[in-house]
Amino acid sequence: MKVDGEHYRTIWIAADDPATVLAIDQHKLPHEFEIMRLCAVDDFVAAIKDMRVRGAGLIGAAAGYGMYIAALTAPQDRAQFMFVAAEKLLATRPTAVNLAWAVKRQLRATEKCVARDDAVRAALRTAEAIADEDAESCRRIGLHGKELIIKAAEKKRGGTVNILTHCNAGWLAFVDHGSALSPVYAAFDEGIKTHVWVDETRPRNQGAALTCWELGRHGVPHTLVADNAGGHLMQHGMVDLVLVGADRVARNGDAANKIGTYLKALAAKDNGVPFYVALPSSSFDLEMDSGLANVPIEERDASEVCFVSGKGSEGKVTTVQICPDGTQARNWGFDVTPARLIDGLICERGICAASEKEINNMLKDVV
Amino acid sequence: MKVDGEHYRTIWIAADDPATVLAIDQHKLPHEFEIMRLCAVDDFVAAIKDMRVRGAGLIGAAAGYGMYIAALTAPQDRAQFMFVAAEKLLATRPTAVNLAWAVKRQLRATEKCVARDDAVRAALRTAEAIADEDAESCRRIGLHGKELIIKAAEKKRGGTVNILTHCNAGWLAFVDHGSALSPVYAAFDEGIKTHVWVDETRPRNQGAALTCWELGRHGVPHTLVADNAGGHLMQHGMVDLVLVGADRVARNGDAANKIGTYLKALAAKDNGVPFYVALPSSSFDLEMDSGLANVPIEERDASEVCFVSGKGSEGKVTTVQICPDGTQARNWGFDVTPARLIDGLICERGICAASEKEINNMLKDVV
Repeated sequence: MKVDGEHYRTIWIAADDPATVLAIDQHKLPHEFEIMRLCAVDDFVAAIKDMRVRGAGLIGAAAGYGMYIAALTAPQDRAQFMFVAAEKLLATRPTAVNLAWAVKRQLRATEKCVARDDAVRAALRTAEAIADEDAESCRRIGLHGKELIIKAAEKKRGGTVNILTHCNAGWLAFVDHGSALSPVYAAFDEGIKTHVWVDETRPRNQGAALTCWELGRHGVPHTLVADNAGGHLMQHGMVDLVLVGADRVARNGDAANKIGTYLKALAAKDNGVPFYVALPSSSFDLEMDSGLANVPIEERDASEVCFVSGKGSEGKVTTVQICPDGTQARNWGFDVTPARLIDGLICERGICAASEKEINNMLKDVV
Repeated sequence: MKVDGEHYRTIWIAADDPATVLAIDQHKLPHEFEIMRLCAVDDFVAAIKDMRVRGAGLIGAAAGYGMYIAALTAPQDRAQFMFVAAEKLLATRPTAVNLAWAVKRQLRATEKCVARDDAVRAALRTAEAIADEDAESCRRIGLHGKELIIKAAEKKRGGTVNILTHCNAGWLAFVDHGSALSPVYAAFDEGIKTHVWVDETRPRNQGAALTCWELGRHGVPHTLVADNAGGHLMQHGMVDLVLVGADRVARNGDAANKIGTYLKALAAKDNGVPFYVALPSSSFDLEMDSGLANVPIEERDASEVCFVSGKGSEGKVTTVQICPDGTQARNWGFDVTPARLIDGLICERGICAASEKEINNMLKDVV
């Protein structure tokens, strides 16, 4: 997508140095737009852990590039080095399935290579393929999801379609285009009047910081609200459609996504507002039969709840403590929305119901 | 309740000066404990508007004292002065019914007084009565609500009862004891093992700042969570009871409370967790037949969403901006939880169902 008129992906190989991966530093957004250099496996591990790169698709792509850098920087015992790199990357974030999916794909792609150059070439090809497929899947999610917005616009006789989204499932969360926001961009670019309610998404405020930033750069009208506001908005007819992403969708259609998504799904159901989850097929976990019972939910550092970062009075990013000294806090990163609350899953292959039968049918020829 | 071993109310007349009302400055909490002086009607208007005094009961008590100060400082044309004071106070916060209730009670108490001294005496008596009744009602809410916690403890065979609360409906929101937290204090003081999940309550973080502070001062175990976390907690059996306050409950049992309460009520219903609203009878609005249709919802300044205040690195309270420059935001202060999601209303008179019949029955001899 575009930043100040220039096209960017969230992650890419430096044009002048194939041993350097570049990525937008999402810690710095929205106050600074900075590109960071990733040259060693540990750079990738730290960037994913600190959420400098984050979001289901982008984590997968970053892991793919990380494994390429592992192949490139491996010593004699390449297999062992790649295995350790894989372990380190897998340990960074437990909830998103794309991470494991990308790492395993790289291990498969390189395991039979004997010569170093072959392994590096295979890993590069795979990393680029993961990134390209992610971008293309997201573009196609936009085409399918756009139809829901067009339908809503028709129902409103051309009135503005109000879409609520939680966290950031925009292009910053993927390589390009995004999942939940891809339909918004597609509809907006086609001239459909759209407006997005952006949940700030505590504790890390990805909605306030990232979703507002990327929608603003593209010119899509949007309004920031506290996470608490969505129920009130839906009770009063101010939301036509809820679009969220997913970090993992189980075989039964349960969707793990940023903590708080489940509350919005309940409000949508209670008020008859359509609730859709957008995801590339790489975010399905067909080996998991129930999301609610089985998705591992990452618990992050309590300091993310007790402290809030933002731009201080002198323009510098600073951190404030919002609770008394010594307050105990807990910080789960995700929750699981049961399939019964989801009106449909928007995938690059089309839209299907959140049910085992329809998911299997949609994905039947996916390797 | 106690602060460092000393008993405090949230608002009181200065012992050495009957023309000065003192109150805890809730803007300064939790980082500083400061008492502010209110000596003119405009001091009260500003304190209520800026939420230096806030919470359903405390707003009512503050309005009562404000009208007393109006009587005390009125010039010759007392009636006109009191009327203007009433108008100013009524305009500060639209959602809480206690404000209007207290102002009207003061107008009634003083309207027939001819002599200045009579009017001042009547206003003082009424202000003190409003405050005393508020404290006593809250104490009694604690006695009734405590039974729910005892019942939950029995069900858990003496295991810790986990209570989730939203915003601050503790003693800081009233004159003393609180509404939603009064049962917690009563149960805790009786040795029942209790633990409170405290929603931080964006955008103003009253949970993080005030509820954590007052629970901590009393020694009640508690854990701060993002507003987004409550659904996950309830899905995983980590909440036994939800206790919240209310700014206004309509005749049909619909309860207006801090924005986000409705989302927690939906999650409670979806997971079979009992959801109770605690309020003194002064917070009922029997003239309003439907809360959802009729309660006026205050919209506050958008800056409360875009900026977060807290203690900065040098120990001073500072403010940070969490979104891009120029981001548009909206900031509704309350939402309405429909009666169908409420398991009961805890009042100083007992616990009743959230239905017109039971509410009428409970309140039938309230003037």
